[in-house]
Amino acid sequence: MAARAHVADRLAALVARRESQVVLGLDPDPERLWPKAARHGGAGEALDADAAPAAHAAAAVLDHCRAVIDAVAPAVVAVKPQVACFERLGAPGWAALGAVADHARSAGLFVLADGKRGDIDVTATAYAQGFFVGGAVAGLDADALTVNPYMGLDTLRSFAAVARDADAGLFALVRTSNPGAADVMDEPLARGGTVWERVAELVAELGDERRGPESGLADVGAVLGATQPEHLARARELLPHAIFLLPGVGAQGGRVEDLEPAFAPHRAAGLVTASRSIVRAHEQAGASPADAARAEAERLRAAAWALG
Amino acid sequence: MAARAHVADRLAALVARRESQVVLGLDPDPERLWPKAARHGGAGEALDADAAPAAHAAAAVLDHCRAVIDAVAPAVVAVKPQVACFERLGAPGWAALGAVADHARSAGLFVLADGKRGDIDVTATAYAQGFFVGGAVAGLDADALTVNPYMGLDTLRSFAAVARDADAGLFALVRTSNPGAADVMDEPLARGGTVWERVAELVAELGDERRGPESGLADVGAVLGATQPEHLARARELLPHAIFLLPGVGAQGGRVEDLEPAFAPHRAAGLVTASRSIVRAHEQAGASPADAARAEAERLRAAAWALG
Repeated sequence: MAARAHVADRLAALVARRESQVVLGLDPDPERLWPKAARHGGAGEALDADAAPAAHAAAAVLDHCRAVIDAVAPAVVAVKPQVACFERLGAPGWAALGAVADHARSAGLFVLADGKRGDIDVTATAYAQGFFVGGAVAGLDADALTVNPYMGLDTLRSFAAVARDADAGLFALVRTSNPGAADVMDEPLARGGTVWERVAELVAELGDERRGPESGLADVGAVLGATQPEHLARARELLPHAIFLLPGVGAQGGRVEDLEPAFAPHRAAGLVTASRSIVRAHEQAGASPADAARAEAERLRAAAWALG
Repeated sequence: MAARAHVADRLAALVARRESQVVLGLDPDPERLWPKAARHGGAGEALDADAAPAAHAAAAVLDHCRAVIDAVAPAVVAVKPQVACFERLGAPGWAALGAVADHARSAGLFVLADGKRGDIDVTATAYAQGFFVGGAVAGLDADALTVNPYMGLDTLRSFAAVARDADAGLFALVRTSNPGAADVMDEPLARGGTVWERVAELVAELGDERRGPESGLADVGAVLGATQPEHLARARELLPHAIFLLPGVGAQGGRVEDLEPAFAPHRAAGLVTASRSIVRAHEQAGASPADAARAEAERLRAAAWALG
């Protein structure tokens, strides 16, 4: 692959330059797009009236995502497209995901594909080829992909092998913010600790194999729900060099002030993800969608940056 | 949704009619397709020379999958397309997956989408809408989807809600067959048992909510690696009404003779998945790919059916 810098070093440089640790989550719901995109009067390609509903929806979703990216790009370092929201639109949705990633890159942003994929050896490799680059056909060229660790470290290694060839990274689910997270992740183990703490150890083992020479941060990070701040300090002990991807701020109730342990090793060691609180800010604020989103993203950027 | 019978009852009827519990795994690797498909001289749509590599690969993959389905359909009850192998081809791959599902249905087969998806509430719903039917746009209309339980029961419930509206089902990962499965799934819990046994209890709880009135089988099954037969009897205790999806027979070393506990509650309570051992049978047998695949699928069908 083309030699580019270690993914964590690239991210750290971007965080420093933009003074931002905010990630824009893109979870487009065709029923709740910004008005211009919903009418499909935006910059997207015109579709004839016979096009399939999925093609119309995908075109509207693409317009919406481009408009949101254009509004908030200066305040954020990355987009996190929720793959499910594109996948449900079938082939046109998948094409829209690629176009959204291109648009984010052209705005200078990282692309963190939130796919939560998990599978064994050759299948993990196939998924990774779809999201990174290096396979027989062009992948999404994401900077990172979220992965599910339930099937074990060897499955994460298969993803990491493809990611590393592309100088990209992974974020493994460690402890999420949904109520049911307690069912499996919080189970106490006979050896001590919980399932998620064991997973954190596995993620640390993998990530420590390849840390950025400048930032010292690992290329395998952890997804940690921001709604459970008591977990962050413990996770930081287990994962001293990992970048934490922190969903749940805003609409899900997490407070940016509680995220300080995430940033302890490095300013780029915590990425604050917000989606609905940015994209739907106008529903509270009364301003235009773009102005309200920009203001909310900037508010979040300043609040996180003030933590260190 | 259109009222069709409970997914387990539909499957049980199909198993009885075909006297088969065999599932054809479709994991197409563009580098290892059957010769005619690889040359793209088959029934697929002709592509011009300017088409993108992914479109060529997707067309060849579709030809291959159609040929394999045509060869082995009489001996099997379902196809299990590995979503990763289509997803890595981007939008054309996703379109090919839909066409493969259509072809399998027209051959009278169930479609078990092996996507191992897992996510929270609205995101789980979005994934489920892509694989089932009932969303704003046409989904894949699969009969079942494999899902990952790491994030907890509430995440599985979100998938189940969409599946149930479509009279479709789920297979949750319980204990897989890869070496790394021990890392998380086999961890002993402080309360007794292992992580995978705890997951089995959660899957049983969900599946027992909706059992087929004729078969008595649940609409949420379990993925259990066939390479670890010692787990099957224990899993059957914890999941008395679940259909087990059993990958790993053949190329991965699992023996069909060891699968008897799977079939204890019902002939349709165990589905034996084979992929490479069928699709690549000609590499051992010397016959044509179609003849060798048909013979191997029929051998596997008879061996499993003889167990009860």
